[in-house]
Amino acid sequence: MAIQSLQDLYLHTLKDIYFAENAILKALPAMIEKSSAQDVKQLLTMHLDETRGQVQHLEAVFKMLGEQASGEECPAIEGIIEEAEDLMGEIQDPDTRDAAIVAAAQAVEHYEITRYGTLVSWSQILGHRDAIQHLTAILDQEKAADKKLTAIAEAKVNQKAA
Amino acid sequence: MAIQSLQDLYLHTLKDIYFAENAILKALPAMIEKSSAQDVKQLLTMHLDETRGQVQHLEAVFKMLGEQASGEECPAIEGIIEEAEDLMGEIQDPDTRDAAIVAAAQAVEHYEITRYGTLVSWSQILGHRDAIQHLTAILDQEKAADKKLTAIAEAKVNQKAA
Repeated sequence: MAIQSLQDLYLHTLKDIYFAENAILKALPAMIEKSSAQDVKQLLTMHLDETRGQVQHLEAVFKMLGEQASGEECPAIEGIIEEAEDLMGEIQDPDTRDAAIVAAAQAVEHYEITRYGTLVSWSQILGHRDAIQHLTAILDQEKAADKKLTAIAEAKVNQKAA
Repeated sequence: MAIQSLQDLYLHTLKDIYFAENAILKALPAMIEKSSAQDVKQLLTMHLDETRGQVQHLEAVFKMLGEQASGEECPAIEGIIEEAEDLMGEIQDPDTRDAAIVAAAQAVEHYEITRYGTLVSWSQILGHRDAIQHLTAILDQEKAADKKLTAIAEAKVNQKAA
């Protein structure tokens, strides 16, 4: 798709993050499986549920724009997930692996935070008022997930690994 | 390098972000060249200078740890930069391209914010007190750069592109 305007770039970025959310849906089960601390498993499982809801929010935004929901390959999330999978495969010690998994999940969250922050900003300037509500709801969930990951890392995971 | 402990993971992550900073040093000049708004150029140029200083901070941390400064391939930053370069190459309209460049720079910042946040946290738990000062200095610069990019996007770049 040729990008000739901010509206084109907005739609491209929606497709990028739609691809990313679907990639995250595929990657999270292995991260849950490979984590050993019960509260890491629970937090990631809760976020897997949230991610399913986020995909639906995005589909609602595509519909508002009169567009078919579709993804466009996102090398950024592929790279972030590849790093996570490499580390999970390599680390044998369960506590160290948990620390790596939490850090990897935070890298995923930060990618989403930057993209949704941009999309909310572009929705405002482009007058896509109906989209703002959906995108802000997702953005707030990603920020909350990142905070919960920091809390769990600092209260428990890092100490166990050290 | 086999990762068997949090200390190994810490060193791995330092090498990952050292690779990333050097990749950013190589990528920023094209982003500056391709941006058209004078204040986007200035902000990225200032951040290029900051990035050179961050590489030196990291080299000081490696030295403290008695390790040779070296990078380990970081697919995440490669993916983020690949997306930025694809978009910059594709978008002809200068105002739309500026919006894409600012968004791409924010994706870079957020990757750094998540990694340095993790590294500061691990420095504390591992007792690398001397490293904390360097890593916190970088983290603060990345957060400030992200805020400046948001400010420039919202005050000017997005409106021009819309």
